[in-house]
Amino acid sequence: MKNYVAINSAIVAPEDAKISIYDLAIQRGYGIFDYFKTIDGEAVWLEDHLDRFYASAAAMHLPVHLERTALKQLISELMHKNKLPDSGLKMTLTGGYAEDGYTIDQPTLIITQHRFDTGAAVAAFENPLHLVRFEHQRQLAHIKTIDYLQAIRLQPFIKEQGAQDVLYFHAGEILECPRANFFIVTDNDEVLTPARHVLHGVTRKKLLENKELKVTESVITPGQLANAREAFITSTTKMVLPVVQIDGRRVGNGRPGEVTRNMRRWLLAAQGIA
Amino acid sequence: MKNYVAINSAIVAPEDAKISIYDLAIQRGYGIFDYFKTIDGEAVWLEDHLDRFYASAAAMHLPVHLERTALKQLISELMHKNKLPDSGLKMTLTGGYAEDGYTIDQPTLIITQHRFDTGAAVAAFENPLHLVRFEHQRQLAHIKTIDYLQAIRLQPFIKEQGAQDVLYFHAGEILECPRANFFIVTDNDEVLTPARHVLHGVTRKKLLENKELKVTESVITPGQLANAREAFITSTTKMVLPVVQIDGRRVGNGRPGEVTRNMRRWLLAAQGIA
Repeated sequence: MKNYVAINSAIVAPEDAKISIYDLAIQRGYGIFDYFKTIDGEAVWLEDHLDRFYASAAAMHLPVHLERTALKQLISELMHKNKLPDSGLKMTLTGGYAEDGYTIDQPTLIITQHRFDTGAAVAAFENPLHLVRFEHQRQLAHIKTIDYLQAIRLQPFIKEQGAQDVLYFHAGEILECPRANFFIVTDNDEVLTPARHVLHGVTRKKLLENKELKVTESVITPGQLANAREAFITSTTKMVLPVVQIDGRRVGNGRPGEVTRNMRRWLLAAQGIA
Repeated sequence: MKNYVAINSAIVAPEDAKISIYDLAIQRGYGIFDYFKTIDGEAVWLEDHLDRFYASAAAMHLPVHLERTALKQLISELMHKNKLPDSGLKMTLTGGYAEDGYTIDQPTLIITQHRFDTGAAVAAFENPLHLVRFEHQRQLAHIKTIDYLQAIRLQPFIKEQGAQDVLYFHAGEILECPRANFFIVTDNDEVLTPARHVLHGVTRKKLLENKELKVTESVITPGQLANAREAFITSTTKMVLPVVQIDGRRVGNGRPGEVTRNMRRWLLAAQGIA
């Protein structure tokens, strides 16, 4: 990576973007993060991402040494330094250096920025996704922790199954993808997304907030999934992507549906892309 | 920390013990480790720890760039450099640097060493433990990953409950502590330790292998726990420690029992401590 990075309150050159091996992220996998994008130099839904960032930190007992205004200032400085109008920014907060390898003292804040190709993300809609299900419920699913043990471990399995990503389910409930929320259009034309045991994504939240889109939080059963007319996922980077195959079986007629297209249209407009 | 550290194949000074923030340990909490101790400069049960280290790495699709002989050589060099006769050595293998923040390429190997006070560990037996139960089963419990999200997050809860550690249980089965295996002596004088959904500790393995100690792998139910005469935990650092209180209730007569003392006696002798 060739971009400047913020570590705690300092902006450092790429070659200096290192932290102590005694940090609790490395010793104990302990940390949270959030991720937002910029389009034409403007952060998209930054306040929502900051809300969640501070909430995740509090839930994991991680004090943030920067208040919101100071954090936004640091983000601005980093953006000014990197000069990437369309970008992804990741704010990670780890457990920090721990002499005993176990006790939180002063968390480490890391902000990275990378180029984000908005055009390519928009075009990705034309390559609908194949998913494969896997029984798993993320621990502390409502908190955006850095824990992706299962997701990365499952990469060879996903490839073997000819899929692009995994869809977690547990105890009779369809849940989420590792980095995206999941939605179906039922055979009654309801748009459902799981209410519980999932991360509450910002894109998901925006779809739920718009009453005209008529998205409802609900348990999704395997039976409902089998009979779904459409399925799609949402995330900051993926926006709205159609899912046309799950476990090798077609969803609906196997093509992106009208509801999915409508959601996507609304989202692109809301982000000023379309 | 003031000791030399091995990173990949190099031994580096403490101030250089840093890795890239793009490492998958920091970005995705992805890594495994193992931990062994040395007494009088001799590694204790090293082959067992190396067996598990390579098994954990394979289970997480992490190639180890050093074969066993080369890894042992590196450990020897580090020990020679640090000159700590009684020590703990931690070998961590992370997902390594990932340009995309998601794909395993070349894992990072980190070996740290710290002074271990064998005398203090032996004396700790005189301060029996209070535990508090918490419903949780570690994901991939059989693999020694770096994931301690729950364990560290629960520290304030453990303190509030007046306990020293947490005892995980799930779906009607008593499981383990975050960093130790758990054993009970039943009211029928059987010594039981959970068979499944737990890490298979090396100390646990050694107790199971010695047929004279008569330890059996079995499901432990909350009912059996409530009626247990004794309880204890084992780990490399803790060896055998009595548990005399769980959820504020006494175990047996509330004092370390004869079976626990016997296990400990055997272990100290086996490690050449007693």
